Amino acid sequence: MTSPPPHESRKKLLNAALNVIRARGYCATTVDDICHAAGVTKGSFFHHFKSKDDLALSAAAFWGDMTEGFFASAPYRQLEDPLERLLGYVDFRGEILRGDAPDYTCLLGTLVQETYATHPDIRAACDKGMSTHIAHLTRDVDAAKKLYAPEAPWSAESVGYFIQSVLQGAFIFAKAKQGPEVVRESLAHLRRYLGLIFHQPQSAN
Amino acid sequence: MTSPPPHESRKKLLNAALNVIRARGYCATTVDDICHAAGVTKGSFFHHFKSKDDLALSAAAFWGDMTEGFFASAPYRQLEDPLERLLGYVDFRGEILRGDAPDYTCLLGTLVQETYATHPDIRAACDKGMSTHIAHLTRDVDAAKKLYAPEAPWSAESVGYFIQSVLQGAFIFAKAKQGPEVVRESLAHLRRYLGLIFHQPQSAN
Repeated sequence: MTSPPPHESRKKLLNAALNVIRARGYCATTVDDICHAAGVTKGSFFHHFKSKDDLALSAAAFWGDMTEGFFASAPYRQLEDPLERLLGYVDFRGEILRGDAPDYTCLLGTLVQETYATHPDIRAACDKGMSTHIAHLTRDVDAAKKLYAPEAPWSAESVGYFIQSVLQGAFIFAKAKQGPEVVRESLAHLRRYLGLIFHQPQSAN
Repeated sequence: MTSPPPHESRKKLLNAALNVIRARGYCATTVDDICHAAGVTKGSFFHHFKSKDDLALSAAAFWGDMTEGFFASAPYRQLEDPLERLLGYVDFRGEILRGDAPDYTCLLGTLVQETYATHPDIRAACDKGMSTHIAHLTRDVDAAKKLYAPEAPWSAESVGYFIQSVLQGAFIFAKAKQGPEVVRESLAHLRRYLGLIFHQPQSAN
């Protein structure tokens, strides 16, 4: 095959890693699988990365940058009210459930599940990526709490983690059941909960 | 080493599989790892199981039987009111968060995350085990709904899956953060949600 320019092949390898790892898991993914999916040579892989673990660390950082950019430019981010932004986030997570599980599930949740006890650096990279995403959510929860539930006993951060727990757990059911229905229904429960703790009126259905 | 009797060695291998897979993931776990953890020979392993995949199928069934027996005999199961049983389940899940992540996380959630696209039989076994557990929960949700929220727009089954999504997702954070704090806080949000949708009075904290 003709080699693409170095920068482009690095990005191809990172994108391939996101897709292959989300489909097959981290351990079962080989350097050959990633090169094949990226359409680049093994020589090019080892020009960019020292090892599969080195690629995983770069892929976790790449995923973090990519998803933060993606959510930052989503339409709901333009809403002025922090509670509307928070509910907009939940609705948006429902809207992007397209394709198969590897298309909409989380690289970091998959990666950390397999590596937490054996690869401390990958665990830390996953924790950092997920915590950064949650810190953005927590800012909106905190602002909404000040406006709509200042006396509530829960912390804004715990709500941020709860939102992500629902998503990460529902993704496991999307994999077990080969479809996003549990994710959709769990997001509906999550949205109802957020409405209730911020004392928003509930519709009958 | 001295070989234990055949039935005993099968059970040792299954118990070892639960622990090793929950710590290292499925792909990274070798037959040697499991034999070593079980203290039985490789000959004994292949007397009982055709392969690691064959063991995984038996381990999923063994996990299902073991956990159903465990929850069936838990104190909260004696409560007469179905909503009390449901809230008792959530509290009990908090009480059993002892030890490290491999001690309290779910074999099936771990196993399916890695194998769903590549091992259809293991995926189906995980789905069956998780769905059976959720069916027990759904019976209590359904009975509680009839008593306390007969007009509610949500299905009892969707609440069962939501409860499990929260747990499975929070286990991912227990692994990422090396401790059960997110699980505890997410169970507190889940318990508050169940109280709200069944119209139970909420305390101030």
